[in-house]
Amino acid sequence: MRPDEFDASGWDERGVLPLEMREAAARAGWFGVDLPAEHGGKGGTQAELGELCAEIGAVCGSVRALITVQGMVSAAITRWGTAEQRSTWLPALAAGEHLAGFAATESGAGTELSAVDTRFEVTGGAITVTGEKRWVTFGQQATAFLVLGKLDGRLATVLVEAGPGVSTVPVRGQLGLRAAMIAHVRFDGVRVPMGNLVASPGFGLSHVAATALDHGRFTVAWGCAGMAAACVADAAEHTVRRRQAAVPLAAHQVVRSTLARMAVDATAARGLCVAAARARDAGELDAVAGTVMAKYAAARAAASASQDAVQLLGSAGCASDSRVGRFFRDAKVMQIIEGSDQVSELHIADHLLRKYRVGGMT
Amino acid sequence: MRPDEFDASGWDERGVLPLEMREAAARAGWFGVDLPAEHGGKGGTQAELGELCAEIGAVCGSVRALITVQGMVSAAITRWGTAEQRSTWLPALAAGEHLAGFAATESGAGTELSAVDTRFEVTGGAITVTGEKRWVTFGQQATAFLVLGKLDGRLATVLVEAGPGVSTVPVRGQLGLRAAMIAHVRFDGVRVPMGNLVASPGFGLSHVAATALDHGRFTVAWGCAGMAAACVADAAEHTVRRRQAAVPLAAHQVVRSTLARMAVDATAARGLCVAAARARDAGELDAVAGTVMAKYAAARAAASASQDAVQLLGSAGCASDSRVGRFFRDAKVMQIIEGSDQVSELHIADHLLRKYRVGGMT
Amino acid sequence: MRPDEFDASGWDERGVLPLEMREAAARAGWFGVDLPAEHGGKGGTQAELGELCAEIGAVCGSVRALITVQGMVSAAITRWGTAEQRSTWLPALAAGEHLAGFAATESGAGTELSAVDTRFEVTGGAITVTGEKRWVTFGQQATAFLVLGKLDGRLATVLVEAGPGVSTVPVRGQLGLRAAMIAHVRFDGVRVPMGNLVASPGFGLSHVAATALDHGRFTVAWGCAGMAAACVADAAEHTVRRRQAAVPLAAHQVVRSTLARMAVDATAARGLCVAAARARDAGELDAVAGTVMAKYAAARAAASASQDAVQLLGSAGCASDSRVGRFFRDAKVMQIIEGSDQVSELHIADHLLRKYRVGGMT
Amino acid sequence: MRPDEFDASGWDERGVLPLEMREAAARAGWFGVDLPAEHGGKGGTQAELGELCAEIGAVCGSVRALITVQGMVSAAITRWGTAEQRSTWLPALAAGEHLAGFAATESGAGTELSAVDTRFEVTGGAITVTGEKRWVTFGQQATAFLVLGKLDGRLATVLVEAGPGVSTVPVRGQLGLRAAMIAHVRFDGVRVPMGNLVASPGFGLSHVAATALDHGRFTVAWGCAGMAAACVADAAEHTVRRRQAAVPLAAHQVVRSTLARMAVDATAARGLCVAAARARDAGELDAVAGTVMAKYAAARAAASASQDAVQLLGSAGCASDSRVGRFFRDAKVMQIIEGSDQVSELHIADHLLRKYRVGGMT
Repeated sequence: MRPDEFDASGWDERGVLPLEMREAAARAGWFGVDLPAEHGGKGGTQAELGELCAEIGAVCGSVRALITVQGMVSAAITRWGTAEQRSTWLPALAAGEHLAGFAATESGAGTELSAVDTRFEVTGGAITVTGEKRWVTFGQQATAFLVLGKLDGRLATVLVEAGPGVSTVPVRGQLGLRAAMIAHVRFDGVRVPMGNLVASPGFGLSHVAATALDHGRFTVAWGCAGMAAACVADAAEHTVRRRQAAVPLAAHQVVRSTLARMAVDATAARGLCVAAARARDAGELDAVAGTVMAKYAAARAAASASQDAVQLLGSAGCASDSRVGRFFRDAKVMQIIEGSDQVSELHIADHLLRKYRVGGMT
Repeated sequence: MRPDEFDASGWDERGVLPLEMREAAARAGWFGVDLPAEHGGKGGTQAELGELCAEIGAVCGSVRALITVQGMVSAAITRWGTAEQRSTWLPALAAGEHLAGFAATESGAGTELSAVDTRFEVTGGAITVTGEKRWVTFGQQATAFLVLGKLDGRLATVLVEAGPGVSTVPVRGQLGLRAAMIAHVRFDGVRVPMGNLVASPGFGLSHVAATALDHGRFTVAWGCAGMAAACVADAAEHTVRRRQAAVPLAAHQVVRSTLARMAVDATAARGLCVAAARARDAGELDAVAGTVMAKYAAARAAASASQDAVQLLGSAGCASDSRVGRFFRDAKVMQIIEGSDQVSELHIADHLLRKYRVGGMT
Repeated sequence: MRPDEFDASGWDERGVLPLEMREAAARAGWFGVDLPAEHGGKGGTQAELGELCAEIGAVCGSVRALITVQGMVSAAITRWGTAEQRSTWLPALAAGEHLAGFAATESGAGTELSAVDTRFEVTGGAITVTGEKRWVTFGQQATAFLVLGKLDGRLATVLVEAGPGVSTVPVRGQLGLRAAMIAHVRFDGVRVPMGNLVASPGFGLSHVAATALDHGRFTVAWGCAGMAAACVADAAEHTVRRRQAAVPLAAHQVVRSTLARMAVDATAARGLCVAAARARDAGELDAVAGTVMAKYAAARAAASASQDAVQLLGSAGCASDSRVGRFFRDAKVMQIIEGSDQVSELHIADHLLRKYRVGGMT
Repeated sequence: MRPDEFDASGWDERGVLPLEMREAAARAGWFGVDLPAEHGGKGGTQAELGELCAEIGAVCGSVRALITVQGMVSAAITRWGTAEQRSTWLPALAAGEHLAGFAATESGAGTELSAVDTRFEVTGGAITVTGEKRWVTFGQQATAFLVLGKLDGRLATVLVEAGPGVSTVPVRGQLGLRAAMIAHVRFDGVRVPMGNLVASPGFGLSHVAATALDHGRFTVAWGCAGMAAACVADAAEHTVRRRQAAVPLAAHQVVRSTLARMAVDATAARGLCVAAARARDAGELDAVAGTVMAKYAAARAAASASQDAVQLLGSAGCASDSRVGRFFRDAKVMQIIEGSDQVSELHIADHLLRKYRVGGMT
């Protein structure tokens, strides 16, 4: 299924992403773009992954979110997993045999993930997982969760397969990403093998989840760049075609100046995404901070462009099947997830200030 | 039914405003606040009407829209109708025996209403009405439409009761105002008495519809002021109560600075609404322009405040029953209807420039 | 001298406000608008004081600043001074026999005035004042300073007349308010009578200076409202008159939409000033917070309107004698003094959150 | 003279760029970065030219403007001049033996240059030049002007050396770029050889001046990127160092969020400059539009960053020798020259809409 065959509006309205879509994504290799070839991936660059996310994101945020979450868990395993974990899980994730869920957020731990209450207990050579996670993207269908919790008070991450003891409550009718099959997920003393622990306790948030979130921000950034570009395209197309009293809307200066601002913002945000991809592919130290900047700018550009596009499309932008109307809702969610705008600003500032700080200052 | 008894989220989700709500509104006198007592109204001031719209608008934009459309048609009849039209229609509208629809917009005539294609033909002492109207608020249930069309090429307005020849297609799933029971309405050669013509042909847009739209903008402005204030309240309440890592969100400066900007905007917009009410009650010449300014500023304040409120509430603001999430969608619609932001800006500028213009300049 | 006789551009360029201007201000009663008649004032309302500041502020920010500082010190004495202090100082200030300076800021105490280092010592029935104050408006010419310092570690305020031991260093070439004759002022062990202590030690900042600053914010707010209105007027006038290729600039939609936004902002900000005046005249508890809101919104409106006005005037707005060019520089200063935008936001948020807070929360 | 040796504040205050600065610029090769080596240039890339302009622009907008104007005239001659014109003028411009002035704007022709009134008349094998030009950067000292005028009603460009018949009126005290030695320049029937006509009549604006302006926008864009980066640096440095009540300003979230926004804007704008350089070096068709976008975004980023920087620096940002205070004034000018923001928006939109337009639409 190519992006132009997606029924994005229909999926959004019904709150469901059909099974065949996920299978098609797997077949197309969208789950393994940047995974090593030895583990079933394509061994592609971050730039290639980014371009894919922009292309998909321009059509359907929920499919892009599927690629994101699959990639977040894969990236964490690639970087922090053992050789065995990599050879076991990565091919299954790349092939879509496992659908991943990133189970970190809790009702008391959103922006501040270190406050998670989920407990891991080691007994009899296995780990027992107990806790309640919220807002898990594709949690309704995930077959394998990367769960953030605490083991002896230290933050750790464990892979948990769906099955007995894992129950989900679908989230419906939320503002955006309505086909992302979000769920609250409960783990009731689920026992998993010790081998499912990813990295040592103490590294769960600072390393494992951090890698997943960094990967997530990168794909969200590019998805937002795609959304913003789509809004520019729809607004340009509409205002050239739509006439009021025989005059195309685009003949009005206020329409053209709005289009220009949208285009500049969208282009600038995409530029930051390109820079982030380049920094990641080059292994630069600044790549994480550059990715935060790209995600922040692209989410804002998508939000702003979708607001303007709905405005320029008028009633057509408010109709149930309007792409820009859907992106108006989706983009707002993008400003909140994987680091809200506010958190991103502080992250960016901290990175900036590092070079101005002298010893002793916090 | 008091505002705090409204099931606004449920109505929004189901796309239906229940009959008892409309009856309750009529009983409460909400349809006749500023109508003359002799015609079943309360004879109240514009300030009183405004306060009601703010109070209702802070809870449910669709109920506020019901008051708006009922008031638009009533205002047009009050000002431009004959004594007989006033005594016939106004009591029925005030009592909710008639539910009004304002049928002006067409697929080829949105911002530029003078381009309407609807035809009025006088034959055999009656008027035949033929045309297709779009986006009629409460069109699914209206029993009486004020229709804008052309009679012998001149813009005119005619009252048409629902009945044979009048058919409606409900609009569902639109971005906002989902319980406003919007419909596209078709008039297939409907015959109405000559007495249903409101004002002389030629005055339909410049006088009759203009009065309705001016009244509509006024109530929308106040409704938006109510929405903005509600967003400030919800955001303040949430950020004081919600804690991350034991710290209330409101303890963060970036949260407080956002709250402050929201509060200033909301207060300033409300001030413009108050000024518009005062100008209307005093019969000032500038009242129409002041109303446009109030509507423009209040719609923008509501849009901005709802964006910020969803941001500060995070996932809670994206949940299906979130008031601020609903207002995020509703406020966008407010920037488009009754004069889009772009149209309002040109209107405001024209009014401003009038005093700087000299003879001969357009 | 009426405002239309001011040589505001010339004063700005030379960095001097001539003596005759100050004398004319005194004669016109501008220094005593809201002072009690028994002390040489006019006994006017806050609304009257505000209107004057808007009228003057629309022409010359430095003259408005003169009224502001004179009023700040007068207000502090009116509210917290003894009967003797009131009868001694207020008539002299109202008549312009004394020119006041408000000496609070120091190099280590700007936003956080409680950190002042200036020392008051009581010895032999007199107070010795030692310290260095910065950015004292009209400090070059003031004959009486209200000085904030510490007496036995408690914040206190003392009136100090210019004379031996008081030395000033003029500040020149600063960004804005160039004719406000700003100076850094040094007090070298100046001895003043005990009777010059205003209110008890401990009340210097929280009460005396707070009253002065509140009064200052109020007059700054109105001055900014005047600046914003002047920018709207100049931009409207210029764009109607100025033609490019025979077309008036105002014929362009992008010009008109800019004018509209400027006008809405300026009107809304003025509305907040009016509301603040009303609250002050009614003695409402919220008056201080309402004044902060008015100052914040008006300074931002002035900054925004002046940026837009320079933009619309183009090279004419950049010329040395351009009013809007001068206001572009002055308005920036207004966003910094008497509580920067950032401080104002926190102030406004704290006031807002007060009603949502429960016991025990800070 | 290296940039860190510039006395930018002093030059700004005195309104003079000293002769030795110009000589040093010539010696350093700043006037010929992208000129062919055969004509005395360095044969560098647009990217190299851009980086230089950013480096200089971060210190002194007037020196950057000197490079800009020298480059504008050189670029026009390089592209549209005859072999003889190139070999005559380019080495002299590259070596700083000629200081160039671009004389296009008139009192009746700013945004709309086709309305120029300057006349070229061919008599006796020479061209007579008559007209009044305004706002000529470095017009006070230019030794060679590229003049836009009309020859037999067709727009044409002619090179005119300073000398008898060429008189200048210095512009002083303007808002920004105060050391750019701007002048109004009058040509009183100055006779120049036919060989000074650059390109054929009819091509003066659409080709020759267009090339100069495109080159100018490119260097202004990079200069603004440098200004924005300098504002970020100064604000970061100040807020880390400056303490209020013992707390560094940068410890406040509102300060850090402001810094983050500044950094993102500045980085994004620089990205557009890099993209424009790449497009120019690759000879892409979109390079002109990409340059407009870069100039527009960078000027806005510089304006916004300088406003924020002055705000964060407070009184230090308002002092006469403050770099960010100077940039606050300079950046505003950047939003006006070489295509105002408004003109740029329309230019960008027209380029965007080209691909959506069908035959017959304007």
